[in-house]
Amino acid sequence: MRVLAQSAVSQTTIPEEKLKEFCNAVWMKLGVPEKDARVTTDVLVLADLRGVDSHGVARLPRYYADLKNGWTKPTDQSKIVRETKAVAMIDGGQSLGQVVGRKGMELAIRKAKETAVGIVSVRNSHHYGIAGYYSLMALEHDLIGVSMTNAAPLVVPTFGRTAILGTNPISLTAPALHEKSFVLDMATSVVPRGKLEVYDRLKKTMPLGWAVDTTGRGTSDPHTVLDALSKRLGGGILPLGGEGEEHSGHKGYGLALMVDVLCGVLSGSATGLGVDVDKAKPNVGHFFMAIDPGAFRALEDFKRDMDRLARELKDSPKAQGQNRIYIHGEKSFAKMEKYRREGIPLAAPVVESMKKVGGEIGVPWPV
Amino acid sequence: MRVLAQSAVSQTTIPEEKLKEFCNAVWMKLGVPEKDARVTTDVLVLADLRGVDSHGVARLPRYYADLKNGWTKPTDQSKIVRETKAVAMIDGGQSLGQVVGRKGMELAIRKAKETAVGIVSVRNSHHYGIAGYYSLMALEHDLIGVSMTNAAPLVVPTFGRTAILGTNPISLTAPALHEKSFVLDMATSVVPRGKLEVYDRLKKTMPLGWAVDTTGRGTSDPHTVLDALSKRLGGGILPLGGEGEEHSGHKGYGLALMVDVLCGVLSGSATGLGVDVDKAKPNVGHFFMAIDPGAFRALEDFKRDMDRLARELKDSPKAQGQNRIYIHGEKSFAKMEKYRREGIPLAAPVVESMKKVGGEIGVPWPV
Repeated sequence: MRVLAQSAVSQTTIPEEKLKEFCNAVWMKLGVPEKDARVTTDVLVLADLRGVDSHGVARLPRYYADLKNGWTKPTDQSKIVRETKAVAMIDGGQSLGQVVGRKGMELAIRKAKETAVGIVSVRNSHHYGIAGYYSLMALEHDLIGVSMTNAAPLVVPTFGRTAILGTNPISLTAPALHEKSFVLDMATSVVPRGKLEVYDRLKKTMPLGWAVDTTGRGTSDPHTVLDALSKRLGGGILPLGGEGEEHSGHKGYGLALMVDVLCGVLSGSATGLGVDVDKAKPNVGHFFMAIDPGAFRALEDFKRDMDRLARELKDSPKAQGQNRIYIHGEKSFAKMEKYRREGIPLAAPVVESMKKVGGEIGVPWPV
Repeated sequence: MRVLAQSAVSQTTIPEEKLKEFCNAVWMKLGVPEKDARVTTDVLVLADLRGVDSHGVARLPRYYADLKNGWTKPTDQSKIVRETKAVAMIDGGQSLGQVVGRKGMELAIRKAKETAVGIVSVRNSHHYGIAGYYSLMALEHDLIGVSMTNAAPLVVPTFGRTAILGTNPISLTAPALHEKSFVLDMATSVVPRGKLEVYDRLKKTMPLGWAVDTTGRGTSDPHTVLDALSKRLGGGILPLGGEGEEHSGHKGYGLALMVDVLCGVLSGSATGLGVDVDKAKPNVGHFFMAIDPGAFRALEDFKRDMDRLARELKDSPKAQGQNRIYIHGEKSFAKMEKYRREGIPLAAPVVESMKKVGGEIGVPWPV
């Protein structure tokens, strides 16, 4: 689908460093300290590098508007409000989600190093970008990393016809030895909204099982779904597993709800319909966990077994017409290498929106 | 589907206590101490009570055979081999999975009460029944409970054509105030093998997206899939999300792999193709975690927000043709009440297989 999307719009390729400089300059013009600007940029650009362009710099204009309107605090207002040896609760103070998120994961990692497991719950935060950024941080310390967040309502529960839950992603990483690390980073919806937008732009019908209309029935018309969602008329994206129970849509719904329990309810943030809906008070909740495999068995053995399991899957016979089986994260690592070498491809509308922001606050587009 | 299955075979209804007495007597005849017999029985009968009949007493003959053949040790051989304040590793010593599992979850609960979170990793265990039994234990202590296990290979990775991973279930529970607790207990495959068996018995074609044949292509013929699986010729059940990537089958595959990382790799048990394949050395791995919500915020507030979120989902508008939205676990709690009142329905072949076992070792079938 990404190929389709890319072939439909013209692209610019920009070196990672240039793109980062531009983003950093935008944040700093808005009063974000350099250190925090760099974190915010890193999260966004990592999404583009890993091919998750829906969560990359395409979102810069939204974060920009939130900062400009005072909905996001430019300086870090977050603080630890409760703490034990193994867990902590952070109030994000409506600061940048990326800054709060990084702080939360750093704390979870510190705790895991001391007590084998650390959990940090975050309330009153903002959209934090890709969940995988934070879980990837754990790999640098040879830890298992977990990152989840709730998000604005887009997903319809099984047998419902109104979006109540977010695309509530789950990310888990685990270090390997010679193989690439395992990096699961998935929305619990069957597809992201961006996929419907691609089909809409191309005026294509989408497969049944991705979304329902305002009556709660499956539809293949992306335009009607997106239009109704934006006007809050009902309908929305389906959870992983699709419509009803035949293909276990209730499981994807259960995973989305699990994420809201761990992110929203555990932290006392907004949940369900309340998440990230009031622009001035998004009150998003996150969940971060780090686990030290070395506390359970020799780290080297753990990593060797990660390799063995990855090879067992990758070396197994391929389905007719397929020539490769992937481990999660592998495609994104390949994209990162390519984009770091050749530059990051950005669709023309993304570049235009960035130029517009730059023009407004006097940060020139670098290419 | 369950209705379909039940209408096709005749049933006996048996009171919970009578069924439990029979099972206990069987285990004890095989040398299992009474305390452990009760645990094993409780796990099996809870599955029947909650409507997960594939994991209920229908499995008694298999556990019986494993004990009789010496593949499962009748007395508990498990021991804690590594322990820190928050985590522990248990070697199951090839004891009954239910006995080891209960011990693991009890330890995780104890740790969560002391340090807010507890994780127990278990290696060298057996099939432990429904994952939900263990996560439900946490609710009695107002904790969030997590239970996962790897399992014998039945699930084909995206783009593959051989079953490498198990149906690897994820269960998470969280306590509510007046509403029923949230009890997610799901295989990460799109359907369990039992569902294919039901379609096969009824000689019905199944929906595309449930399984692939030995070439890795989608098929609607349950018989061929089951036959090839039993002969290890290839093919198998698809992960949640179905075939390929169109409906995000790679996400279900990722969840199944995540479970094997946390259960198999973390514990140093068998993983992938090696799990529960050698009857004499099943070497199954489990993962148990308990989290104390009271360490993050007032427990009462947590539970009240659980209620609010549940009501928000349940009270939201229904899809055309539907009149109810469920929270996970709700249907099973209703079944439990009904079956405790009216007796547990067992299909005739299940009763026959139990009678056969009873006849072999001199335990009369009670009804």
